[in-house]
Amino acid sequence: LLLQRLRLTLEYDGTAYHGFQRQAGRMTIQGALEAALARVTRQPIQVVVAGRTDAGVHALGQVVHLDWEPGLDLPELLRAVNAVLPRDIVIRRGEGVSEAFHARYSAVSRAYRYRILNTAVRSPMARRFAAHEVRPLEVAAMQAGGDLLVGCHDFASFGGKMWSGGTTRRTMFQLQVRREREQVTLDFRANAYLSRMVRAITGTLMSVGRGETSVEEVKSILEAGDRSRAKWLAPPEGLCLMEVEYPDSQLFVRSKG
Amino acid sequence: LLLQRLRLTLEYDGTAYHGFQRQAGRMTIQGALEAALARVTRQPIQVVVAGRTDAGVHALGQVVHLDWEPGLDLPELLRAVNAVLPRDIVIRRGEGVSEAFHARYSAVSRAYRYRILNTAVRSPMARRFAAHEVRPLEVAAMQAGGDLLVGCHDFASFGGKMWSGGTTRRTMFQLQVRREREQVTLDFRANAYLSRMVRAITGTLMSVGRGETSVEEVKSILEAGDRSRAKWLAPPEGLCLMEVEYPDSQLFVRSKG
Repeated sequence: LLLQRLRLTLEYDGTAYHGFQRQAGRMTIQGALEAALARVTRQPIQVVVAGRTDAGVHALGQVVHLDWEPGLDLPELLRAVNAVLPRDIVIRRGEGVSEAFHARYSAVSRAYRYRILNTAVRSPMARRFAAHEVRPLEVAAMQAGGDLLVGCHDFASFGGKMWSGGTTRRTMFQLQVRREREQVTLDFRANAYLSRMVRAITGTLMSVGRGETSVEEVKSILEAGDRSRAKWLAPPEGLCLMEVEYPDSQLFVRSKG
Repeated sequence: LLLQRLRLTLEYDGTAYHGFQRQAGRMTIQGALEAALARVTRQPIQVVVAGRTDAGVHALGQVVHLDWEPGLDLPELLRAVNAVLPRDIVIRRGEGVSEAFHARYSAVSRAYRYRILNTAVRSPMARRFAAHEVRPLEVAAMQAGGDLLVGCHDFASFGGKMWSGGTTRRTMFQLQVRREREQVTLDFRANAYLSRMVRAITGTLMSVGRGETSVEEVKSILEAGDRSRAKWLAPPEGLCLMEVEYPDSQLFVRSKG
């Protein structure tokens, strides 16, 4: 039995789903994806994901890997799976990779984007992919708060461990806040995240942007290492997993044939 | 009984609605808006719209007028109505206007935008607000076809009369086709439109962009004045009513008090 490892890059509108991870009796991204893969390949397929996204969170560049017994050729497989996937999930790319590739363990960084529409009136056309904040956000203050979080820190105040015994230290490579007219965007890149960490940090920085929390308080919250200190949680619809980065991905690509 | 005329500017995500116009037993924008207005004002309210949009078509700048017996002050009314409207409809602005203002008859032009995502793979995050075209679109050819439609023409090949006895002549002030990376956008501005005219023109120009229909054929379709000649209809999700223009709108604004 010759199995081939595939790496798939996914885009999804997470609005209708209870997050990525398979759960009995609930619509999840993993459930829908595995069902479509099984239907096309007629093999039981389990995928391994780079980073689980929460209920309502979107992705433009989620990555999974899976092992299958090749039947169809790869472009044909991808077309067939995309044809049976629901309209809010798609495989953007797929490639054969070596067995050394692991969607989660090989990843060196994950980039998330959080979008906020900062207007007096809510927007029906933006509502699925951006949070809405009525009060004016001071972007320079948000950036100053964000700057304190760049680097290697114990982020225990901003999220839960992914499994017991794990560490709460993570390395934030980038945290950029910018405004383009009425849209405020936060771009994160870290080696990995604690559960709900991006939304907790965003909620905290929004509080800074509204002038309710000072930049100094962000520092004290970070240093406290106490999950009860960061009490804000930005809503899921503003969050999107943009990209998962792997070290020299050529290393993993399996040569043809 | 002193009635005041209001002009409202609306944004909506039309995905869930059977178009603007009220229909018994069906979800429509007009039905939802009038229900919310009636609930807040406790008056039976009927709105008059600048341009009816089809099922699934969106708006960023739809305009309606209505007459009401003032109770609340205007900002309070708008906040209250927006609070009871469904999340996919909102009043962006409202102002008191003179009785000379009529949302439909006073309008001098309507601007529509049609968005096409021109990629090999469909996009879950773009799907609600853009059509998807797999084959590469040649934008210069589409623009050349569109140029033939600018000016005052009988558009009978591209749409139905809005009422029997009406004319099928319309004046197209602008028809611009452009590409930004993978997105192709068509911007229309005309004095008015026949029913489904923007989608029929877009469908025809997409056929030109795919190289299936020549620019000369667009001319011959226009000149035929025969609705059966333009057989393409671009899907509704790509279409958005951007703006309705009124002559010197200050003319209509009612002074305070």
